[in-house]
Amino acid sequence: MRICDLGEQELLRRLQHFCPTDLIGDDAALMAVSPNHRLVVTADTMVDGVHFSWGIANPDLWTMTPTEAGWRVAAANLSDIAAMGARPLGITVSLSLPPNSLWADIEAFYRGMVACLTPFHTPIVGGDVCRSSVLTVAIAAFGEVLPDQAIQRHQAQPGDAILVTGYHGSSRAGLALLLHPDETTDLTESDRQSLIQAHQRPHPRLDVIHQLRQLEGNMGQSFRVAGMDSSDGLADAVLQICRASQVGATVDRTTIPIAPVLQRWRSPQDALNWALYGGEDFELVLTCEMAIAQAIIQHIGPPATIIGHITAQPDVVLIDPNQPSWCGRLSLAQGFQHF
Amino acid sequence: MRICDLGEQELLRRLQHFCPTDLIGDDAALMAVSPNHRLVVTADTMVDGVHFSWGIANPDLWTMTPTEAGWRVAAANLSDIAAMGARPLGITVSLSLPPNSLWADIEAFYRGMVACLTPFHTPIVGGDVCRSSVLTVAIAAFGEVLPDQAIQRHQAQPGDAILVTGYHGSSRAGLALLLHPDETTDLTESDRQSLIQAHQRPHPRLDVIHQLRQLEGNMGQSFRVAGMDSSDGLADAVLQICRASQVGATVDRTTIPIAPVLQRWRSPQDALNWALYGGEDFELVLTCEMAIAQAIIQHIGPPATIIGHITAQPDVVLIDPNQPSWCGRLSLAQGFQHF
Repeated sequence: MRICDLGEQELLRRLQHFCPTDLIGDDAALMAVSPNHRLVVTADTMVDGVHFSWGIANPDLWTMTPTEAGWRVAAANLSDIAAMGARPLGITVSLSLPPNSLWADIEAFYRGMVACLTPFHTPIVGGDVCRSSVLTVAIAAFGEVLPDQAIQRHQAQPGDAILVTGYHGSSRAGLALLLHPDETTDLTESDRQSLIQAHQRPHPRLDVIHQLRQLEGNMGQSFRVAGMDSSDGLADAVLQICRASQVGATVDRTTIPIAPVLQRWRSPQDALNWALYGGEDFELVLTCEMAIAQAIIQHIGPPATIIGHITAQPDVVLIDPNQPSWCGRLSLAQGFQHF
Repeated sequence: MRICDLGEQELLRRLQHFCPTDLIGDDAALMAVSPNHRLVVTADTMVDGVHFSWGIANPDLWTMTPTEAGWRVAAANLSDIAAMGARPLGITVSLSLPPNSLWADIEAFYRGMVACLTPFHTPIVGGDVCRSSVLTVAIAAFGEVLPDQAIQRHQAQPGDAILVTGYHGSSRAGLALLLHPDETTDLTESDRQSLIQAHQRPHPRLDVIHQLRQLEGNMGQSFRVAGMDSSDGLADAVLQICRASQVGATVDRTTIPIAPVLQRWRSPQDALNWALYGGEDFELVLTCEMAIAQAIIQHIGPPATIIGHITAQPDVVLIDPNQPSWCGRLSLAQGFQHF
């Protein structure tokens, strides 16, 4: 049996048999270190030609420079830390390099990582370098969180509001512009750049976690928040939360925040598809009691929005108040598969 | 400037500019999490064809099965945690896999890791899988230690005894047997297997850390211990400790513990070379006050041995009490270079 016959989901399912079941299923593992602290750990690998088109071979095909690749890998890992409600402590970086790699590219990659990490006071604390025929970057990131402030997928409850912290679809739109640079659009250069930046320089929403802590302080109480990040798409996030919590959801498609520039550029259907399935927006998708969700939205400010609510029945449906007879169903099938 | 022009040491030196200087230079990074806890983090990458000869292509060339490769990568990471005096908390495993990899090999690899980790109650807490043309395994391991029990390289002091926790050279001897299976030797099958096992199934010396804690309890005091593991060779370990502590060392070559089977098989000079430069024995090389070192040796038992002492002058010399006029000098030059 080869890995490509198994498929990614089945491979992951089999590998998870080697992990304690209480540690897996979230954006990062959550481990008790001392009674009052939880360690949060996540790992990510990026392979040249799979996750980014970088490498000495084809600079013409780069959809992002080494600096941008560095930023993105750091952002993806910090986003996983944010998705757990945690404070980042550091990352390790292990590089597998073809011997003819250019130092200038490696340095630019590190500069990109550091540029993303520095605002969050997160150091690169070590790693490893070795020789390989394929440029591969393996990152582990770790953070800490108080036990009752950890955000996990399995704690959504019927009646919870579902909120998202920002625009969806922009990253996918930016990728489309990078992949088809010669396609004519009505976009201004500044519009184009805003979408490309959403793809190349996503911002991990650790600021939202900081604001949640502020809000808890203001309200004099802590509150239950479930959720994850939308790195694999907004639809995927809602579905994963529902599956982990054994609940369903109703999402109002007219409320999903989509950047005005994307709304102007593409048809409503295209924009919605990218918002739901495009992935890599690195926003947070959170569920909590409606009153808390409203307070969070108000504290964070637009474009953070409540997009629906959790239901007891297990279906995950998309509705449109303007077309009461229309009903869609979110599906994982459109997600990216590695094998 | 290409990486192969820089060389591994210069590449590492340049990459370290991106890390806080107080976090690097040991087997693992040591980070303050709370006032009474330090988080220890290390990362390692193994590439098929570089670190192990595993892969679908050439099973005939395997010097270790996937199970043994899994054991070794887990052992190497646990050894780094032990080298910091820490207790392991967990590891993450990121796999980059050619799509035609066999599930049976991946499963065997995980079984090997789990077999090594389980006696130390260390879970696999997550990771990542993705597609690549080269099988690559990136591990991050983390542990915890009390601030005054951390073992670091830079704390050796003149007058300290240098002790090693076990035999050196056996792993290199085992590799030689694996690489030249048809070479005639006088070894019995059981002798051969003991050396091959030293290479394929090294034991991380977390037991020594446990015994140090016991000894501190017995003595009613904690004590300063500097050191690291001997994964890159015993000579490398002594040299690294001396460099980090800005001291020198005198090592008595007649005291270096070498397995009797290796002493019988090879000439004294060959055996000593493998003991000093062979690497991958994954023992600990520690320095501390002589009286403490003697207590540790007695507590651990043979073949743990005091092999020399730290000196104020910076030379790292090898002596032989049987040949007072002879004097050698340890050198990093014989170490393995990745680029």
